[in-house]
Amino acid sequence: MRVVVPAAEGRAVKVGAGKRVRVTDLEGSQVGDLFVFAAGDLTEHLSASHTRAVTSRLFPAVGEQFVTDRRRPILTLVDDDSPGVHDMLIAACDPARYRALGVSGFHASCADNLRRSLASLDLASAHTPQPVNLFMRIPVSGDGRLSWLSAISRPGDAITFEAVVDCVFAVSACPQDLVGVNGRRPTSLAIDLLSDHDPRAKEPDK
Amino acid sequence: MRVVVPAAEGRAVKVGAGKRVRVTDLEGSQVGDLFVFAAGDLTEHLSASHTRAVTSRLFPAVGEQFVTDRRRPILTLVDDDSPGVHDMLIAACDPARYRALGVSGFHASCADNLRRSLASLDLASAHTPQPVNLFMRIPVSGDGRLSWLSAISRPGDAITFEAVVDCVFAVSACPQDLVGVNGRRPTSLAIDLLSDHDPRAKEPDK
Repeated sequence: MRVVVPAAEGRAVKVGAGKRVRVTDLEGSQVGDLFVFAAGDLTEHLSASHTRAVTSRLFPAVGEQFVTDRRRPILTLVDDDSPGVHDMLIAACDPARYRALGVSGFHASCADNLRRSLASLDLASAHTPQPVNLFMRIPVSGDGRLSWLSAISRPGDAITFEAVVDCVFAVSACPQDLVGVNGRRPTSLAIDLLSDHDPRAKEPDK
Repeated sequence: MRVVVPAAEGRAVKVGAGKRVRVTDLEGSQVGDLFVFAAGDLTEHLSASHTRAVTSRLFPAVGEQFVTDRRRPILTLVDDDSPGVHDMLIAACDPARYRALGVSGFHASCADNLRRSLASLDLASAHTPQPVNLFMRIPVSGDGRLSWLSAISRPGDAITFEAVVDCVFAVSACPQDLVGVNGRRPTSLAIDLLSDHDPRAKEPDK
């Protein structure tokens, strides 16, 4: 089952324990802000800082797991069919971020997209957890400086996860068009829920 | 006014807007987990991921500010009289962390110290924000790997902040004795609330 995440919007799906889910950058150079919550209790969510403590990496390697704020594994990174450049340092964009960048009226944001996509499932989270920023390119220099560069993912690049527990999997196609992370042109993503016998579950289809 | 944070314990103080507060490593090689909340509403707190987005650094430089999850400046880093090695990547230790390290009974933790120190002020936070880990040495290699090394702070090393808004400032003297971050011997810290005319407000006293 494919759920397209239109440019600058968000979508959330439920993923059962043991099921695989893939996020594809349909047009290239597009960041996806991923938020994952325990299905039974959204106060438990994927946590970047706890995941770094477990993996001792800025971003997990293929085969490693993301954990929640209660240190329970929630997602395994099973395949990365992209240049492998992702970010787990930067907060989700939100209305305050766009105000600081000079926007006076409404601007779509990943925080707002999360809220809306959860609401579409009759769910809500009291706060916006730090996301996993798929395809986002924020290199760290030796002196600890961060650069904000355009994503180098190509059309069709994808990353695949397996849910460790029943979870809610929300993806925002980042609407950022004032900083170059999306090449200044926000585009769409796709979420594919892979069936157990889907050949794509084993072999990427690009 | 000095508040000593005994080894493996936590303490919280209220700091008014414009006031300065210093954290000193009394015996050396001791990590302090710092949590800062807006005094009027503890759901607003210092956020590592939002601070990185503002500073474009893994850790702010002297003169830069830490911001909250609502992107409001809450603390300015005004002086760093230490080797300048701090961490803003790793979650606070908690009971689950010590269980994973093989501890079966009670073990003090920074998350528990935060809860207790807030309770001493009749305050509570629904969750444990990602802390600012003062003096903690987690270098990042070029390929994104993190190392857990003993703190290189010496006795008397200190870091000084100025509150931008009225805030609650909680420090845990990290009880971690199973991983080498504290040189395997947790020791004490001090929180100094500096008076406006305290010479230490301008000139470190070591």
